[in-house]
Amino acid sequence: MSGNTFGKLFSVSTFGESHGIAIGGVVDGCPPGLELSEADLQPDLDRRKPGTSRYTTARREEDEVQILSGVFEGKTTGTSIGLLIKNTDQRSKDYSKIKDIFRPGHADYTYQQKYGARDYRGGGRSSARETAVRVAAGGIAKKYLKRVHNIEIFGYLSQLGPVKIESVDRTIINDNPFFCPDVSKLEALDSYMRDLKKEGDSIGAKVSVVATNMPVGLGEPVFDRIDAEIAHALMGINAVKGVEIGDGFDVVTQKGSEHRDSLTPKGFTSNRSGGVLGGITTGQDIVAHMALKPTSSISVPGETIDVRGESAEIITKGRHDPCVGIRAVPIAEAMLALVIMDQLLRHRAQNAHVACETPVIPGKVSPGSITE
Amino acid sequence: MSGNTFGKLFSVSTFGESHGIAIGGVVDGCPPGLELSEADLQPDLDRRKPGTSRYTTARREEDEVQILSGVFEGKTTGTSIGLLIKNTDQRSKDYSKIKDIFRPGHADYTYQQKYGARDYRGGGRSSARETAVRVAAGGIAKKYLKRVHNIEIFGYLSQLGPVKIESVDRTIINDNPFFCPDVSKLEALDSYMRDLKKEGDSIGAKVSVVATNMPVGLGEPVFDRIDAEIAHALMGINAVKGVEIGDGFDVVTQKGSEHRDSLTPKGFTSNRSGGVLGGITTGQDIVAHMALKPTSSISVPGETIDVRGESAEIITKGRHDPCVGIRAVPIAEAMLALVIMDQLLRHRAQNAHVACETPVIPGKVSPGSITE
Amino acid sequence: MSGNTFGKLFSVSTFGESHGIAIGGVVDGCPPGLELSEADLQPDLDRRKPGTSRYTTARREEDEVQILSGVFEGKTTGTSIGLLIKNTDQRSKDYSKIKDIFRPGHADYTYQQKYGARDYRGGGRSSARETAVRVAAGGIAKKYLKRVHNIEIFGYLSQLGPVKIESVDRTIINDNPFFCPDVSKLEALDSYMRDLKKEGDSIGAKVSVVATNMPVGLGEPVFDRIDAEIAHALMGINAVKGVEIGDGFDVVTQKGSEHRDSLTPKGFTSNRSGGVLGGITTGQDIVAHMALKPTSSISVPGETIDVRGESAEIITKGRHDPCVGIRAVPIAEAMLALVIMDQLLRHRAQNAHVACETPVIPGKVSPGSITE
Amino acid sequence: MSGNTFGKLFSVSTFGESHGIAIGGVVDGCPPGLELSEADLQPDLDRRKPGTSRYTTARREEDEVQILSGVFEGKTTGTSIGLLIKNTDQRSKDYSKIKDIFRPGHADYTYQQKYGARDYRGGGRSSARETAVRVAAGGIAKKYLKRVHNIEIFGYLSQLGPVKIESVDRTIINDNPFFCPDVSKLEALDSYMRDLKKEGDSIGAKVSVVATNMPVGLGEPVFDRIDAEIAHALMGINAVKGVEIGDGFDVVTQKGSEHRDSLTPKGFTSNRSGGVLGGITTGQDIVAHMALKPTSSISVPGETIDVRGESAEIITKGRHDPCVGIRAVPIAEAMLALVIMDQLLRHRAQNAHVACETPVIPGKVSPGSITE
Repeated sequence: MSGNTFGKLFSVSTFGESHGIAIGGVVDGCPPGLELSEADLQPDLDRRKPGTSRYTTARREEDEVQILSGVFEGKTTGTSIGLLIKNTDQRSKDYSKIKDIFRPGHADYTYQQKYGARDYRGGGRSSARETAVRVAAGGIAKKYLKRVHNIEIFGYLSQLGPVKIESVDRTIINDNPFFCPDVSKLEALDSYMRDLKKEGDSIGAKVSVVATNMPVGLGEPVFDRIDAEIAHALMGINAVKGVEIGDGFDVVTQKGSEHRDSLTPKGFTSNRSGGVLGGITTGQDIVAHMALKPTSSISVPGETIDVRGESAEIITKGRHDPCVGIRAVPIAEAMLALVIMDQLLRHRAQNAHVACETPVIPGKVSPGSITE
Repeated sequence: MSGNTFGKLFSVSTFGESHGIAIGGVVDGCPPGLELSEADLQPDLDRRKPGTSRYTTARREEDEVQILSGVFEGKTTGTSIGLLIKNTDQRSKDYSKIKDIFRPGHADYTYQQKYGARDYRGGGRSSARETAVRVAAGGIAKKYLKRVHNIEIFGYLSQLGPVKIESVDRTIINDNPFFCPDVSKLEALDSYMRDLKKEGDSIGAKVSVVATNMPVGLGEPVFDRIDAEIAHALMGINAVKGVEIGDGFDVVTQKGSEHRDSLTPKGFTSNRSGGVLGGITTGQDIVAHMALKPTSSISVPGETIDVRGESAEIITKGRHDPCVGIRAVPIAEAMLALVIMDQLLRHRAQNAHVACETPVIPGKVSPGSITE
Repeated sequence: MSGNTFGKLFSVSTFGESHGIAIGGVVDGCPPGLELSEADLQPDLDRRKPGTSRYTTARREEDEVQILSGVFEGKTTGTSIGLLIKNTDQRSKDYSKIKDIFRPGHADYTYQQKYGARDYRGGGRSSARETAVRVAAGGIAKKYLKRVHNIEIFGYLSQLGPVKIESVDRTIINDNPFFCPDVSKLEALDSYMRDLKKEGDSIGAKVSVVATNMPVGLGEPVFDRIDAEIAHALMGINAVKGVEIGDGFDVVTQKGSEHRDSLTPKGFTSNRSGGVLGGITTGQDIVAHMALKPTSSISVPGETIDVRGESAEIITKGRHDPCVGIRAVPIAEAMLALVIMDQLLRHRAQNAHVACETPVIPGKVSPGSITE
Repeated sequence: MSGNTFGKLFSVSTFGESHGIAIGGVVDGCPPGLELSEADLQPDLDRRKPGTSRYTTARREEDEVQILSGVFEGKTTGTSIGLLIKNTDQRSKDYSKIKDIFRPGHADYTYQQKYGARDYRGGGRSSARETAVRVAAGGIAKKYLKRVHNIEIFGYLSQLGPVKIESVDRTIINDNPFFCPDVSKLEALDSYMRDLKKEGDSIGAKVSVVATNMPVGLGEPVFDRIDAEIAHALMGINAVKGVEIGDGFDVVTQKGSEHRDSLTPKGFTSNRSGGVLGGITTGQDIVAHMALKPTSSISVPGETIDVRGESAEIITKGRHDPCVGIRAVPIAEAMLALVIMDQLLRHRAQNAHVACETPVIPGKVSPGSITE
């Protein structure tokens, strides 16, 4: 219930620092009877893991996840699932330079102020390394959602600096190191990233995430609307500064007659709402977007202070992602999966009799596609 | 812990429908010894209440809040605070027309699907009427934050359709019916709204909210970052489709050397982060923005279905806000106050010894202003 | 999530002081479609309310509950239910005598120390008056459990001072002012209470509570076992100092061969476990007991201190229950109903597919009777 | 927030089965700056671990705990603490006999019914092995409570079958294999256990647990009274069927004039309340007791059914504790420590200003001793 746990019924509690012995967590509330093994979780961990392309940090981690409990004879038992990922590449480097100085734009300063001390090795708990456990936990949710409800979740890079994607071909997302769904932009991305590397600078990005085959009715109105929980989930990812559902900030200039998605006997005719009305899923695709800031760990010199409050110059060397947005794609998927899974169980708890019956509305209401 | 409660330590649980007998709630976890009376809460309720200008719904509600418990001899006792607001203008109109039809863009359809039935009178629980209780609860938090920590929270309309505000003069926000901080835009706003009314249409808006005099160190890293909780809080307001912290979606095109806020012995030199790094407050102003969609209750005819799934045309008559964003300003303030209050108590619980000591960093780090 | 809320999925948040304007609460998570009106809740409130017999306090309260929301056209809607009970008999007496003195055995001292102040009128929040809201909330749970699952919950006085009941005839419990299920003990109870009244003293009691027609499988193993939550629920009732499940403290001297309830194709042959194994219901009756201390508000003079820490003598006059255990019967029922309801929803959330199937074990396993 | 997490601010989430790879957990909310290493936690784990005397199971587990995160340079950082204990003695025995049969008095039957399947190896998650993680987590709480507030927690065996302890000498508790504080009873205990072993039977026990040097004011009135949370915590330990605070069930026959603890300028004159009034600590010792049932895993033949619902005879061979109450002593201490730690942080959150000031009552109110 403290800050390291996410979810009310399907929950994950995580631990672990960038340069500690291991990271891991406890997944609670998983329904029993789900076939599960490490092989189900590894692919997403591999998609997130560092060192896989020239565009991400050179740190190498195997990110091999181990399921320590909660699975018996190949199936979940309904008890809590222990997850463990050992840190293998804890390069024992000299931290004396960063120990006493705060990287601007980083959590160094705030951790020090909050706790009176901090684990300065690689950012400690504030490192995005922590998100590997989320990806593993989200993988369990993903598997359940797909197996039992046919729900599929996928994310993609929708903008990197000035390069905006213009079309979404879901089939190619995992075939390129940018999680880019638009083949025509791959060259521009490559070129931009090469230039950036030369500058020693970093860049922001926008990531989109979609859930298809959604059931209608998920979400707790008022405070725990499913879109509010998605916002919580995505804004809780390192470096995220903005979250949108459906048309997001574009709604500011839309009129009501333009924004509302018409309902017809065959379904909605558009999906500006992003699949959520009144905090409850409509049965259309859930569509969300998030903005990720450029990492502050760059080799361009910057102005800062040290722990004595004195002026200092900083140049961050070492292995950092020039665009943290790229590797955020599987993390966003995992967080969305965790929210949907949790809300699915919450819906079932209160409305099992409704949920089991045929839909209230006769005439299938078809989910809108993401291209609408 | 269900969807009608917000907050972990300082929490509010709400109830009530648009056209029921009353709305109200329970505020739990308030520190004892705070001077409190209805007079502290009424001003914000009056700012939110309908029927105060030609730009908002003509429904008239006194929104008079009553404190039923938790205050003794003028001070909070530390026990739960009961809040009650009676519904006075429950016009007993004929609901037969909307009973069997779903307004597109509304929660009608999703409530019906989730629960198998719905209170169709005025939107029932999905009505923004529910937010009056949030405003009252937020008023308690606001008072505590101001009295004990000198924290101030204020919001304003930062865009309405095509009309963008360009400067923030905090002193005039409450002197005009738009909560607009830019006197040069009042005429444009008035003109735009008049035209809109003639069309019978509605429009989206952007609202900003700021907390000043923030202490450093509030926020739970990982899942309950203070920015993630702010996103949860703001996206949980009716009609909100997007949330930003600091520079928000602008970070997508920023470089690291541009985005990072430099630290100097005199403080940060900018506040692109919106006062949050690694999910923890920096001591600078918290700055957040939200996008509100145009209401779907408009008199422009629309296409929809009825409860039998058959095609129907809808024209929503009655008393509706043509721009729900306007009255959302005090709601956003209340939600931000609830998040900060809760995080303040959580920080104190874990880090009381740190919180009581002098700041770790010598040399006052001054909070950035919102104009930065 | 603070101390005034009980339950995770089906929850109640309460407010109100003994001598305030009103008491009330918010019930969240109720499934939709349940027929509900005040008439369903009033009978239990009447059973609990003061002033109904010579054996309880002479304070008179109508305890008329009002449902303010969450019910539409006679059925629950799935949204939160607001409950309100006005305080009518707030005798404006002179509190100057008790204002500065601590009644020994009372919460006066601890509230003052915890919060730095207290509402001394009638015990404020520490008064058992607060439990009326629990009874109303529990009434909703009771109705659902009976209607949907045929679960019935009843409590009774099982001991009052030296008078132990020896047989349980469920049909007579509500026909006498002691909630006594043993007609042969009524005279002894009456006689004991008359003598006690003359002495101006009070007495402890034991109350038992039973749930019949229980489904198998409710309860979260490990920390939230259903018996652990029942213990939480019952120990959270004013004056309770002990809780037992099944054979309770008698197990200390039992051998394993004697304690274990044998399983046969026709069901369990005994119910020493009280219907719970490993924190999960067996399908037998849940049986729990609780010990209530004698109230400290008596007219026998006692030794205490005042707010300055100086020695003082105290004689509590006024309207108090000489045996608080008697009126605790409907409260215990309500708390048990809340726990079962919450665990039912939690079970359904995680194990809906199991819950919907036929039982794993062929051959009906009959629930043990409470006389075993 | 599901059943495998305990605590609201200082929380532990656990995982692991009896015969799995490892057990472990995540401790969240620990204040920063506490010196901590495995050496602080190992002593209590050693006290709990099996195979240390002839009176407990012969299973041998090193129960060596590893801290995986949350500690840096020897001190807690304020981030979550990962704990891991590997299972070393997972004797790969033949489970075919117990796979299809339910041990009466065991969780076999209820797990199977709840989840539709179960990990039958050594009881899986229902095994008391899980409590090792609680002991480790409780050890962190214990250390903080002692270091910062001088609170000490200790438990002891107060009854084993017919053998009642009659005096409490705290200094000898850890010098004998029974955690018995009464040297005159050691022979009787030894003799009783030898006879029991010959019979192949098991026996119940009573365990007491005490916290000394308690601050006044801890506990949330109403639902989360500290005694209610202690009841939750202790009833949540395997085999516990009853919990008492202070005089417990003895209050049933006490009069008010006898039960109430008098207050004098020098403090309370007795401690019948067990250190809690109105759910809030008085500053006296917290005293609680719990009843543990005899284990059902005995070699005396018993009547049961198999998974097909057919009649069967069962004889449980293997390594089991003939009195599970003995090893429950450190578990009870750990659970009490977790409750106090959590309530301490919750109190601090709401009442920091009260908590930091000098006590309200002049004149030291001394805590009662446990012999009262």
